[in-house]
Amino acid sequence: MSRGYFSHIPPVEFKGVDSDDPLSYRYYDKNRVVLGKTMEEHLRFAVCYWHTFCWDGFDVFGAGTFERPWHTGVLDQDAADHKLDEAFDFFTRLGVPYFCFHDVDVMAAAATPAEHVKNLSVIVDRIEEKMAKTGVKLLWGTANLFSHPRYMAGAATNPDPEVAAFAALQVRHALEATHRLGGANYVLWGGREGYDCGLNTRMGQELDQLGRFLNMVVEHKHKIGFKGTILIEPKPHEPTKHQYDTDVATVYGFLERYGLEKEVRVNIEANHATLAGHSFEHEIQLAIDLGIFGSIDMNRGDPQNGWDTDQFPNDLREITLAVYYILQGGGFSTGGFNFDAKVRRQSIDPEDLFYGHIGAIDLTARALLNAAAMIEDGTLERFKEERYAGWKEGFGAKMLAGDVDLAGAADYALEKNIAPVRKSGRQEFLENYVTKFVK
Amino acid sequence: MSRGYFSHIPPVEFKGVDSDDPLSYRYYDKNRVVLGKTMEEHLRFAVCYWHTFCWDGFDVFGAGTFERPWHTGVLDQDAADHKLDEAFDFFTRLGVPYFCFHDVDVMAAAATPAEHVKNLSVIVDRIEEKMAKTGVKLLWGTANLFSHPRYMAGAATNPDPEVAAFAALQVRHALEATHRLGGANYVLWGGREGYDCGLNTRMGQELDQLGRFLNMVVEHKHKIGFKGTILIEPKPHEPTKHQYDTDVATVYGFLERYGLEKEVRVNIEANHATLAGHSFEHEIQLAIDLGIFGSIDMNRGDPQNGWDTDQFPNDLREITLAVYYILQGGGFSTGGFNFDAKVRRQSIDPEDLFYGHIGAIDLTARALLNAAAMIEDGTLERFKEERYAGWKEGFGAKMLAGDVDLAGAADYALEKNIAPVRKSGRQEFLENYVTKFVK
Amino acid sequence: MSRGYFSHIPPVEFKGVDSDDPLSYRYYDKNRVVLGKTMEEHLRFAVCYWHTFCWDGFDVFGAGTFERPWHTGVLDQDAADHKLDEAFDFFTRLGVPYFCFHDVDVMAAAATPAEHVKNLSVIVDRIEEKMAKTGVKLLWGTANLFSHPRYMAGAATNPDPEVAAFAALQVRHALEATHRLGGANYVLWGGREGYDCGLNTRMGQELDQLGRFLNMVVEHKHKIGFKGTILIEPKPHEPTKHQYDTDVATVYGFLERYGLEKEVRVNIEANHATLAGHSFEHEIQLAIDLGIFGSIDMNRGDPQNGWDTDQFPNDLREITLAVYYILQGGGFSTGGFNFDAKVRRQSIDPEDLFYGHIGAIDLTARALLNAAAMIEDGTLERFKEERYAGWKEGFGAKMLAGDVDLAGAADYALEKNIAPVRKSGRQEFLENYVTKFVK
Amino acid sequence: MSRGYFSHIPPVEFKGVDSDDPLSYRYYDKNRVVLGKTMEEHLRFAVCYWHTFCWDGFDVFGAGTFERPWHTGVLDQDAADHKLDEAFDFFTRLGVPYFCFHDVDVMAAAATPAEHVKNLSVIVDRIEEKMAKTGVKLLWGTANLFSHPRYMAGAATNPDPEVAAFAALQVRHALEATHRLGGANYVLWGGREGYDCGLNTRMGQELDQLGRFLNMVVEHKHKIGFKGTILIEPKPHEPTKHQYDTDVATVYGFLERYGLEKEVRVNIEANHATLAGHSFEHEIQLAIDLGIFGSIDMNRGDPQNGWDTDQFPNDLREITLAVYYILQGGGFSTGGFNFDAKVRRQSIDPEDLFYGHIGAIDLTARALLNAAAMIEDGTLERFKEERYAGWKEGFGAKMLAGDVDLAGAADYALEKNIAPVRKSGRQEFLENYVTKFVK
Repeated sequence: MSRGYFSHIPPVEFKGVDSDDPLSYRYYDKNRVVLGKTMEEHLRFAVCYWHTFCWDGFDVFGAGTFERPWHTGVLDQDAADHKLDEAFDFFTRLGVPYFCFHDVDVMAAAATPAEHVKNLSVIVDRIEEKMAKTGVKLLWGTANLFSHPRYMAGAATNPDPEVAAFAALQVRHALEATHRLGGANYVLWGGREGYDCGLNTRMGQELDQLGRFLNMVVEHKHKIGFKGTILIEPKPHEPTKHQYDTDVATVYGFLERYGLEKEVRVNIEANHATLAGHSFEHEIQLAIDLGIFGSIDMNRGDPQNGWDTDQFPNDLREITLAVYYILQGGGFSTGGFNFDAKVRRQSIDPEDLFYGHIGAIDLTARALLNAAAMIEDGTLERFKEERYAGWKEGFGAKMLAGDVDLAGAADYALEKNIAPVRKSGRQEFLENYVTKFVK
Repeated sequence: MSRGYFSHIPPVEFKGVDSDDPLSYRYYDKNRVVLGKTMEEHLRFAVCYWHTFCWDGFDVFGAGTFERPWHTGVLDQDAADHKLDEAFDFFTRLGVPYFCFHDVDVMAAAATPAEHVKNLSVIVDRIEEKMAKTGVKLLWGTANLFSHPRYMAGAATNPDPEVAAFAALQVRHALEATHRLGGANYVLWGGREGYDCGLNTRMGQELDQLGRFLNMVVEHKHKIGFKGTILIEPKPHEPTKHQYDTDVATVYGFLERYGLEKEVRVNIEANHATLAGHSFEHEIQLAIDLGIFGSIDMNRGDPQNGWDTDQFPNDLREITLAVYYILQGGGFSTGGFNFDAKVRRQSIDPEDLFYGHIGAIDLTARALLNAAAMIEDGTLERFKEERYAGWKEGFGAKMLAGDVDLAGAADYALEKNIAPVRKSGRQEFLENYVTKFVK
Repeated sequence: MSRGYFSHIPPVEFKGVDSDDPLSYRYYDKNRVVLGKTMEEHLRFAVCYWHTFCWDGFDVFGAGTFERPWHTGVLDQDAADHKLDEAFDFFTRLGVPYFCFHDVDVMAAAATPAEHVKNLSVIVDRIEEKMAKTGVKLLWGTANLFSHPRYMAGAATNPDPEVAAFAALQVRHALEATHRLGGANYVLWGGREGYDCGLNTRMGQELDQLGRFLNMVVEHKHKIGFKGTILIEPKPHEPTKHQYDTDVATVYGFLERYGLEKEVRVNIEANHATLAGHSFEHEIQLAIDLGIFGSIDMNRGDPQNGWDTDQFPNDLREITLAVYYILQGGGFSTGGFNFDAKVRRQSIDPEDLFYGHIGAIDLTARALLNAAAMIEDGTLERFKEERYAGWKEGFGAKMLAGDVDLAGAADYALEKNIAPVRKSGRQEFLENYVTKFVK
Repeated sequence: MSRGYFSHIPPVEFKGVDSDDPLSYRYYDKNRVVLGKTMEEHLRFAVCYWHTFCWDGFDVFGAGTFERPWHTGVLDQDAADHKLDEAFDFFTRLGVPYFCFHDVDVMAAAATPAEHVKNLSVIVDRIEEKMAKTGVKLLWGTANLFSHPRYMAGAATNPDPEVAAFAALQVRHALEATHRLGGANYVLWGGREGYDCGLNTRMGQELDQLGRFLNMVVEHKHKIGFKGTILIEPKPHEPTKHQYDTDVATVYGFLERYGLEKEVRVNIEANHATLAGHSFEHEIQLAIDLGIFGSIDMNRGDPQNGWDTDQFPNDLREITLAVYYILQGGGFSTGGFNFDAKVRRQSIDPEDLFYGHIGAIDLTARALLNAAAMIEDGTLERFKEERYAGWKEGFGAKMLAGDVDLAGAADYALEKNIAPVRKSGRQEFLENYVTKFVK
């Protein structure tokens, strides 16, 4: 049952590139086949619950601006139900196949462990009905281990193990709920798993706590038979001064250290990548190369602002390259594109939630077409193939295989009197090539 | 033999805290015993060859300003010898126990592999004599695999294996020279081991090349019996857009991936840490916690400028904390404080080289006194001990040991109906505490 | 009347440098005379109302942690009174001479213009009594034109003039209240005076609105006979993507454009300076050189985090230089050091509010002693005097005075065949000099 | 006469959007009329001499890689002539109407003032011939006051007035050469006009020196009858820690302070804008709104790197908005798009210089088509017109005109009991709108 907040918005339809209707898709034709799969299968779009239905438009400097009818000041079961109705109405009108949620996004507020378990259970029943009725699926679930004051000094990394126990309670039930709802993945973002101050922190101890906790999650996943992927979401800082899951490379080392590199993958967020000093494409390519690519939190930061702005993406070149690297890496398996993005706090109307999502969905679909064209053309991969050809045979291949030692390589240089011929890297040529496909 | 560039500067002596002589030490009394070791033994200061004797003051926007007498425009054997004489004269007058160098810093320029080997060999003989005569020791040696145009696309990570072979030649001979000169460590900084453009780069392939190359270096170290430590120096970018050895956490993951985490440690540079978005202390503490702490490149960046400024340190609080964490971690074993710092290009006089080093040495000695006082006082560690006490026994200890699973922890929370009591993190109190010791 | 939140904290006293009491001053002896004035007269410390008494510890990722007894969920007259009692109890125990406030910090929440005027008036009466009873004075007042949703698109720069009218109402009454309470200054910080998106913004129009608004404020100041200084507080961004009062140089240009450079000065915040890419000292020195230096908002940012962290200062070198430049510029006239700083959200105890302020006050007092010693020593100014001596006479003086034109200067160079002798800038020497005084 | 470095590259022609020839234009059809002017007239492209013909590919970490035939190690008249021949051959083959140069880019190196004047004069004669023969025009000239060691502490802002005299000599002759060659503008970029260290700097004194110097330049311009525009190029830092011409707002304040706001305009560089923490479009729009928009240095920085990378632009959305704002502001008068961009140091072939420029030219031409379509559509301006309509009449208009004072505005709010109705800022809608036109 819809409560009517979005009822004046007709279901969003694909109307083609010439459409002037800002509430239509110009590129996202979900059944269109690209490189052998439909757009829907490739892109696996999800709407996030928190930014879209929970956030009221507040920021550190000011109060909420949105006045959604379900923001009644008290998050009781009625408010949770109202929110759920509107959320599924939104998903359906928008036409996306997936959604994502934190436990506390969907449930009525709870004061005790027992109440937490109960309130979550109540709403999961209703979510299950909604999903059955609408066909909307769960891309991933997660537990919010950062908003409640109890987590002010961390969840799994808290100096107090009682807090970690509460975190375990939340994760257990969020993971089980995700399993029950057929979720494709389960995500952990360590919002408070880091430190504000080195003077009161034992980083090594906290890393061990986090490593143990993550192992507990993986063990539980197997115990209950959850077949989805466990994902960590890297971020360098904010809210903490330093978060342990800084970026893809850091997470990889952490997984190796705690024996989890085969069990856990990453959920890469564009804005977190840039806050960490990397391009979005870099983080994607690195995760693929390290074998831990999982899923995407789609948004963008502001290149001139130093905090997590979580804006809807609008850089076609960036997203074209992101999709290109994902497709080159084999595409999503369990992952997808979740819009971890929020409309600006001046965008107060229900329409604005549609504009934000439609723009991002269409941009990504357009990027898919661009990326597919680049793949079919093949120039980039041919260029790389040729550039690295020397390592495929002869001295290069032997060195890479471990059949040449340092002295052997040095002698080779000396005996051949080598004077390597430098070759242009052709960066501008390749950038122009990409520009041509960004259309 | 000195050529006289520094001959008007008397040997720098410890004159005590009330000294007004800017060419004296006010804190660095090398034989003063602090926490059971002399200052010299604790701090293991080194002067770097490149910034101090090779750089002529040029930057991207302008020509060199220093006009050192050995900068004659041609780096032939005479110039190399002249530079060497002045360098050891400087080391001696400054009174530091160690120096560091790249192969091409010390040798005459070479056009071919054979010439490289020969020219390096010639100067290493002379260095050996100088070291014997002066007692100055080698903290570490390294090979410059970034300045020559052949390395424009990387050394070990070059798309052309011939370039990697040249790199192998340089590293082999630099490592053997370091061994012969009794160096305490051998460092690899991958100035061009990264990429400028993702479009022409196979990151996974390049990482494998780098992993193999580093294994070759480690194998060679063992083969020749070098007992020093192999060190990697992290940096996030510059000169490349992205360097593979981004920061301590990234290097740790790389070492794990290529089976080197027991063989290789890190040489942490302050300015590289801040360019990577971390505090200097963070990188030190993390390396200690991960068991890969090795040595320090001492300098500072400009907090408002986004490139590697390599200035001499002058932040007493920062260095006090850095020394505190190093002492807490057991102090240096083979590592030391190398000043990878350069005087500003307006500081054109021989005196300025002394001012830069004296200021940094004195600051670090003062930091040592501060850090030692904090260790003797013990407040910080007691605070942490108490803060994490819950993980030492009972539920916390069991969870950390793996004796509690996720369901068990969740049940614990539920059954105990836990409502964790939050405790102040006391950040301001602890910061005030440190401020008191920074004097 | 105190409500007892701080009643277990004894009044903070000066106990000397050897004091181990973390609730005492080690340097701030308010009656100690330095360079002819007492510390209290030099430093003019103020506590801010908003961070210390209004903020409940929330951030974008989590709920409030502080649970102050006056944070009852509803900001009615009782809560406002309770807060006021505790605030003045805090000021008194801490022993600071000044405080600062926004209208909405102190008053009961208001729903209409009339209610705003009434509620502000009620609390101003009570503030007046408190001030009379305690002797605490007002450094500055201001109006909060950014937290209420009505200001989401700006106050004076709002596309809707009705919003600007509401802003005028707030400013008028806040200014008049400041006047009545004997405030030394009135501050305008344009939290929403900027833009989130260029696509919906007329920057030129908004600048004109802001220029006109500021002129209205200045005219009103004169009309009511307020003798204090009108101050603008620069900030580059956050909450908006771009704020019009970016930094000191930008504000100067704005004041010139709207004819206000003789009427308005700047209130410089340390964390805003660094967010704008400047050092704190730079902004102070520039404001002095441009003749618009007014007051200081004392805090610090985190050098690795890109948002306004508003931490209490703890960098003795930075504050020593800040105080040095202020003293060199003649010291404060109407301005002072207001602590626009907040304890971390894990610092939940009443003691923590004291630790934060005591550390900052003591640091600044220590910086004053350092700065005074540098001024008495005089080396820095003598160095500069000599360095620029060439501009005092001869060709330099004539050129500066406008008595030489471009052709004349060129001819001078040609005829004298000049080859300027370069002189060392002595940066490291001077930095060491400062290090010596930072103690 | 061409020396043949580019002779294997055929003249670059417009071949239409379907062209697969990477050495052709797909969008830049110079005679195509858009909004009443040809593309050539709108865009006024220029090639810069320094990056394209002087830079040899060196960076701070390594030697030059390009090996252009005119880089012979000595910059004598032969080398200067050779460079000039190749440069005009390049301009002609590329088909751009303008070029730009610094004095020392084009001339043989000079050791004395007299030699400077002579060597510049010699090459200006040859440039004049080249221009006459090829029809290539001069967009702007400038003097390099930053590369020579004499300028290490600034040019006009040097503590030594003799250095300022040398700067005057260079500027006088560069300005006169620009005048003689029919240059459309004269640019001043203050590469060393700033400071490295506040401790040895009198900022106020240096600003006065700079203000006087700029007045001398303006006076000389009028004296010699130069009708072009004098332009300042803002940059926040690099090579200095702080440059006085930080950004557009800072330059505006400086011009106001020294009475030059009607005489001097800005040359905005994209990479300098982003280094200053602004978007490129912001700087353009602000300069237009302040009445000081002049010309553009076209390039881009790397969003993850903190120094001036001067890459060729490839962000179609950014350039579309840049061109849109310029067109809305009336287009260029004397200014144009100068490519202050360099190929990467791995792009070592003559072809790469073409790829870099062709990509940038085509991108800008494509952006012009996009921007023109947005202007013809008119949605953005209509949206703004409506959004600010309240300020056109009634209370808003009166307040802006100065007919309402603060008390009047406050009373208006009170009497009308205003409760402003908030309206959506429609950011996502507008961003989607732009995305549609970026094609």
